Amino acid sequence: MPTTHLPYPREELYRLGPQRSFSGRALGEIAFPLGGIGTGTVSLGGRGQLRDWEIFNRPGKGVTLPYTFFSIWAKAAGGKPIARVLESRLQPPYTRADGLASSEQAGLPRLDSCTFQGEYPFAKLAFADRRLPLQVELEAFNPMAPLDADLSGMPVAIFTWRLHNPGHTPVDATLAFSIANVAGYDGVTTLDRNASTKMLGRGLNSWQQQNGLAGIALTTEIAISWPDLTHTLRWKRAGRFDAFQSFWDDFADGQLRDDPTPDRAPDGRIDYSTLGLRVHLAPGESVALPIALAWHMPNLTNTWNAGQRGLEGLVGKPIGNHYATRFKDAWDVATHTLRELPNLESATRRFHDTLFESTLPAHVLDAVSSQMSIIRTTTCLRTSDGKFHGFEGCNDNVGCCPMNCTHVWNYEQALAYLYPALERTMRDTDFAINTRDDGDMAFRTALPLEPVVLWDFKPAADGQMGSIMKVYREWLLCGDTKWLRKLWPEIKRALEYAWRGPNGNASAAWDPDGDGVMEGEQHNTYDIEFYGPNTMCGSLYLGALRACEDLARALGEDVTADEYRTRYERGRARLDQELWNGEYYVQREPPVDQIVEVDHGTQPWHSSAYVPGENELRYQYGRGCLSDQLLGAWFGAVVGLDNLLPPERVRAALASIFRYNWHADLSDHANTQRTYALNDEAGLLLCSWPLGERPTQPFPYSDEVWTGIEYQVAAHLIYAGLVDEGLTVVRGLRDRHDGERRNPWNEFECGNHYARAMASWSLLLALSGFRYSAPAGRISFAPVVNADKFRSFFSTGTSWGSFAQAHNDSSFKATLELRAGSLRLQRIELCPLTTPTQVSITLGGQPIAAHLEPAGADVVVALHQELSLVAGELIEIRLR
Amino acid sequence: MPTTHLPYPREELYRLGPQRSFSGRALGEIAFPLGGIGTGTVSLGGRGQLRDWEIFNRPGKGVTLPYTFFSIWAKAAGGKPIARVLESRLQPPYTRADGLASSEQAGLPRLDSCTFQGEYPFAKLAFADRRLPLQVELEAFNPMAPLDADLSGMPVAIFTWRLHNPGHTPVDATLAFSIANVAGYDGVTTLDRNASTKMLGRGLNSWQQQNGLAGIALTTEIAISWPDLTHTLRWKRAGRFDAFQSFWDDFADGQLRDDPTPDRAPDGRIDYSTLGLRVHLAPGESVALPIALAWHMPNLTNTWNAGQRGLEGLVGKPIGNHYATRFKDAWDVATHTLRELPNLESATRRFHDTLFESTLPAHVLDAVSSQMSIIRTTTCLRTSDGKFHGFEGCNDNVGCCPMNCTHVWNYEQALAYLYPALERTMRDTDFAINTRDDGDMAFRTALPLEPVVLWDFKPAADGQMGSIMKVYREWLLCGDTKWLRKLWPEIKRALEYAWRGPNGNASAAWDPDGDGVMEGEQHNTYDIEFYGPNTMCGSLYLGALRACEDLARALGEDVTADEYRTRYERGRARLDQELWNGEYYVQREPPVDQIVEVDHGTQPWHSSAYVPGENELRYQYGRGCLSDQLLGAWFGAVVGLDNLLPPERVRAALASIFRYNWHADLSDHANTQRTYALNDEAGLLLCSWPLGERPTQPFPYSDEVWTGIEYQVAAHLIYAGLVDEGLTVVRGLRDRHDGERRNPWNEFECGNHYARAMASWSLLLALSGFRYSAPAGRISFAPVVNADKFRSFFSTGTSWGSFAQAHNDSSFKATLELRAGSLRLQRIELCPLTTPTQVSITLGGQPIAAHLEPAGADVVVALHQELSLVAGELIEIRLR
Repeated sequence: MPTTHLPYPREELYRLGPQRSFSGRALGEIAFPLGGIGTGTVSLGGRGQLRDWEIFNRPGKGVTLPYTFFSIWAKAAGGKPIARVLESRLQPPYTRADGLASSEQAGLPRLDSCTFQGEYPFAKLAFADRRLPLQVELEAFNPMAPLDADLSGMPVAIFTWRLHNPGHTPVDATLAFSIANVAGYDGVTTLDRNASTKMLGRGLNSWQQQNGLAGIALTTEIAISWPDLTHTLRWKRAGRFDAFQSFWDDFADGQLRDDPTPDRAPDGRIDYSTLGLRVHLAPGESVALPIALAWHMPNLTNTWNAGQRGLEGLVGKPIGNHYATRFKDAWDVATHTLRELPNLESATRRFHDTLFESTLPAHVLDAVSSQMSIIRTTTCLRTSDGKFHGFEGCNDNVGCCPMNCTHVWNYEQALAYLYPALERTMRDTDFAINTRDDGDMAFRTALPLEPVVLWDFKPAADGQMGSIMKVYREWLLCGDTKWLRKLWPEIKRALEYAWRGPNGNASAAWDPDGDGVMEGEQHNTYDIEFYGPNTMCGSLYLGALRACEDLARALGEDVTADEYRTRYERGRARLDQELWNGEYYVQREPPVDQIVEVDHGTQPWHSSAYVPGENELRYQYGRGCLSDQLLGAWFGAVVGLDNLLPPERVRAALASIFRYNWHADLSDHANTQRTYALNDEAGLLLCSWPLGERPTQPFPYSDEVWTGIEYQVAAHLIYAGLVDEGLTVVRGLRDRHDGERRNPWNEFECGNHYARAMASWSLLLALSGFRYSAPAGRISFAPVVNADKFRSFFSTGTSWGSFAQAHNDSSFKATLELRAGSLRLQRIELCPLTTPTQVSITLGGQPIAAHLEPAGADVVVALHQELSLVAGELIEIRLR
Repeated sequence: MPTTHLPYPREELYRLGPQRSFSGRALGEIAFPLGGIGTGTVSLGGRGQLRDWEIFNRPGKGVTLPYTFFSIWAKAAGGKPIARVLESRLQPPYTRADGLASSEQAGLPRLDSCTFQGEYPFAKLAFADRRLPLQVELEAFNPMAPLDADLSGMPVAIFTWRLHNPGHTPVDATLAFSIANVAGYDGVTTLDRNASTKMLGRGLNSWQQQNGLAGIALTTEIAISWPDLTHTLRWKRAGRFDAFQSFWDDFADGQLRDDPTPDRAPDGRIDYSTLGLRVHLAPGESVALPIALAWHMPNLTNTWNAGQRGLEGLVGKPIGNHYATRFKDAWDVATHTLRELPNLESATRRFHDTLFESTLPAHVLDAVSSQMSIIRTTTCLRTSDGKFHGFEGCNDNVGCCPMNCTHVWNYEQALAYLYPALERTMRDTDFAINTRDDGDMAFRTALPLEPVVLWDFKPAADGQMGSIMKVYREWLLCGDTKWLRKLWPEIKRALEYAWRGPNGNASAAWDPDGDGVMEGEQHNTYDIEFYGPNTMCGSLYLGALRACEDLARALGEDVTADEYRTRYERGRARLDQELWNGEYYVQREPPVDQIVEVDHGTQPWHSSAYVPGENELRYQYGRGCLSDQLLGAWFGAVVGLDNLLPPERVRAALASIFRYNWHADLSDHANTQRTYALNDEAGLLLCSWPLGERPTQPFPYSDEVWTGIEYQVAAHLIYAGLVDEGLTVVRGLRDRHDGERRNPWNEFECGNHYARAMASWSLLLALSGFRYSAPAGRISFAPVVNADKFRSFFSTGTSWGSFAQAHNDSSFKATLELRAGSLRLQRIELCPLTTPTQVSITLGGQPIAAHLEPAGADVVVALHQELSLVAGELIEIRLR
């Protein structure tokens, strides 16, 4: 199976950091989201501007707040003062019917240029300017640490401005932040200079000062801990451009007009305020100025179910944000943030450093880190009951394809490994709420959860089986068998629905004859139904059967376990036998006259594959090479079910997928569907028909390129040992997100920040060969890049840390350092290059009793006693 | 008065054609409008795409029609077929929440690259592609000839595709145009693949064939005269992407699925159709394929008065398009177009060639030709009564600042010189409709005209005086004294309103003491009021007085004429004496306690300059150097009133305006208002305060850059002999419209295609020194560039043609060639380099009797008998 020529040199594919840095045109699309889990975000643009204000309980791409920006005034001793907006210059085009807006301060001078570097959750900008007598850098972040959903769920953006005086004379400077008080804003309506809408007005800007912190309280707060302040509570209320002109005239003189008497804005009008930090910098001196922008928008309501048959009644229902149960108001958030800033920042940096010190290729870390941000965008909610929910993605102003869509969230691994407790709330919803008595799981969630309203549509075969594999993953990570037991009846019902069918009607079931192969109407992630055996739904079904076998045994239901095992083995054998075409697995469509249609709700967007009177099914893939054909096997690789399909076939099929579906250049690709990759870009098509027999109406999206599937295939290629190919797919994908074409921190599919893209986390799992079973106390590492000097982040349901290994000819040393939580250990699986015969382990220098058990290519270090590692502890393992 | 260093080399400033050609990123903003007077337009994008569909009786920036595009299929003998969208590749960014749209055929392959060149009204694209076996070029235009408003007012876009086979084997090809039938579309709603709105549906696509023409009739028509056709009346009606896929599959096979039975589209749905032209090209062979896209949208209604106090009731009132009175339907337009195509094209080319063969600098021709397009954009209407009206400009989806705004249209000269009969209808509206009994002219027009509703707001001092200068211009150009006499009572009332005041209240008048200087509340084009003497309104007032003096004399009212003259002379002396500061003219503001406020209607956008209790007036310019300070003198130069202010002062003031207000680089400019020029761009500020004393609240827009004022100043600099400076302003301005930053065919201010930009026509007048007085039968030329070998377009109210002159040491030869209309001639003013003593004139080789009369730097050739030149005739004048 020789692979076609790879367009990237291997040294590029395997290059370690530093991460990309962006400048010039590549700043155009950059929007780095700043916000916590379920808080919404405001994004830092590539030029340093604030863009896409999404803090108002809904997405807001393109939403800007008028006159909301950072600015600087500086004067070197004996020199002329200079005032600048703290952004690099605007970039073309400059077309707007009535000119670039005053409210975007388009006409004020900016700094000459900047470079942007993002290592989520930290963004760094370095500015350059001919005239400013200071060097200026900005670091922005929102606190984030795995496992700690509260620390990672704060409605705040923290900006640290670093000013340095490189000259020979002292410099006086004022760094200011101006902001519009838009209390009442709906997050959608265009606000400009003259904005006057009924929703606005009566806002009050007031001065706050306590415990060394100071700031201006609006609904959104700015707070800082800095002694020398200047501020304007509200700009002059005046027509035309007078308010802005008056502010800028004051600022350009280096002093804001402080006004101590707060009063409410007139009806319908916006007040603007500015907070300035004054510094005096001696030659060579530097200073860091921290500013916290905090918000508090408690009233999350359902804005997304309009037009969804059966759920329209939910629109407007209050749901509420979890963060609002923790903080009284934005000032509370701001003061908490600044009081705790050293802790918040060090926790965040600890995570960041652990992730970025990994020896994974730079572009893989880029893919892994940038897409884990999705957890903390408007794609995801944390409702006032503490539960986590997710859209598929977000349209520009409303969440898209609500909610917890089982088949799209099949691909996501980031939340599961970073916030496993939140991920478990999704399983609670899947099984305790959405699974009907007959085992039919509504594949979307209606919010609010109470009273229970279920999405009235056929269940998704891939999503439902995937949810079972997910619950297995959650159990492995956390080991909470009590939790599992509570959901077990629904899990079994959901699995057995495969052969029992809707309301027990087996003839309408996915697997009517119960042989472990789905043949019925299988609704799936392409928004259509596949008919007949196929390994896309089929491999997920095998995975669900195997997972439930293990779960049943863990719960003492051996008979059930055996039954599932039997179905699995029959299914596996039949799929492999009937669908392998020598190069990959195909679909075997049934004759049209054998189609059994399932009577279920319909939705406006749905088109049936089976149209009475037509003699060919629509929307199948047939003899095609489907990129998702091994979806269940990929998930199996993640959770340690390695053998769902024969490994040599899996490897061959993956090589075919890469050969046929991945293109280094799409200039000649003809796609009538939606477009996510084009021109000279590289991408992996969802399907191709290399042997001909492309259907007249192939399944929708077949000619598209989805990052989530690219990641899934890339990780699976790596699991299968086709590492070059896997890294190539990731490289092509991330090159498309180069800041000029697309935002590196937003991979969109059917919506921005699309959940499927969180499949990128499986790259980290695959490259480090990491697995953990809490029930067994077993941790495994099998690095496949830089294995002789390897380091990587890892996480379990209760802990995270850093794993390292080093090889030389005669010895192998591994270290496992826990940086948060606690970790139960009984067995440690490693993958040395040579077969060792001796092991020594130490914990804080103290030896631990253990022996070696060989296990294929790996070795297992079996501890004589279970160990419970806690944060800060490190074990060192030497093999010889 | 030394001018600051000019940033462009002189050879650049004076370079003749060819015009710029655009490629790469410079294609991004290009939208070349195709449409006639009062028909709306569809624009040709830089890549060859159709964009900004504005044929639906309203502006539509960003409006696209789904699946509406050109495509090509080609197959070289023995080769593989290739199918491409006939556009060059899409350019970044590629960000869209759910991917680039199918309905924009984003995923289909395009040609590698193209170059775009526009010489309005012709646009040319040349494509390049690695794989296509043909060379492809496109020429697009809409018929246009000066004076012929009907020929120039056809709702059609004509595309001529030129295919050339450069290879050694024959090539079969199909060139196709696909289009959505959007009958009923409102021109605003976003249409995409799944568009289903109540306004659409029930459209019928039918096949039409007659007299060698064929086409598909929708509401919009495509028609062609080509024998070998293939077509699909309507694509398959199918869900998902199936309709488009099915079309493309057919097309990629080289043959459309003809379907002869037309039927109506289902309710709410769009049908798509495709027309293909088949050709066989032998090696080396070329072919030109003409395609006419015609439309017929008769129902123009008032969509623009919402929110305008007093005029809201007009919204929705029917007005109607003039073109709909000439054509029955779009098929009528299409067949007329193709039947008359040779005539339409040759008339258009004659005008184009006459204009572009001029020896004016290339960037001036670019400015002149590109902005005359405004006449034929949605900024302008020709209503069913045949009258012409104009917005100030257009917001993206609605005309802005309706209608015929007298002060903005002060700057426009293109319509006056190209379609003088239409321009005269605006004067009819100004005086016969909008001028109240007391002489107060409503400075905006309410449509429909009947019943008469007047804009209820104070009159504009600059607009009203300008309208009087305009009526003078119109009379000079056409010599229609009967027409003048009809309007004369209103003209006088409008002038005398200056000292009689509202309802005869002189104390509230602009010029309360009637001394020829305006001192009262002068509302003006900056949307505020100036108080006290200023040369901006003042020079227009002087011009109006002088114009009315001439008009009164022509009508035999010598007493009135003498009175106007007296006021003029007093005013001129006083302005010059009181406002000259040694470098330029300033404003002298009255003390606040002397302000007389005029009680008049108010509008939501208006802010008063005088606020009781404030001790400084807002929004004045005071000691500033105002770019518009000589506005009336510029208009005077255009119409031959050269002496409104002392010429040496005018020249000095213009030099100051250039020195202080023009910036080669705006990076350090701080502007809190709207932004039309920024970063390293050049531009002329509306005002500056080089001597200090900038008001706290200067007049709005003072820090902005408006192309209309840049043109006005540039032309005036040229008139005053500061030619380098004038060309520099134009060069900086057009460099800002480089296709990447802004569209060369859209100079926006408060709206796209802003009428003020038609001041660019005065560049042609100034550089050729052209003037015409029909009453006197006098034509004048005084070229100031390439005077030794000069050629230029000229036009009068009844004719247009080409003027040329050539010098050598001993002789001077001028030719005047009439290319359309007829021209009465009595006196010809020329400007030879040396003083001649002899003249000889011939008409078609036959001598004409004449003698020389010296007149300052010029000479006057006085014909002994009046001559009436007709199209095709040429006179030749030799001086020695």
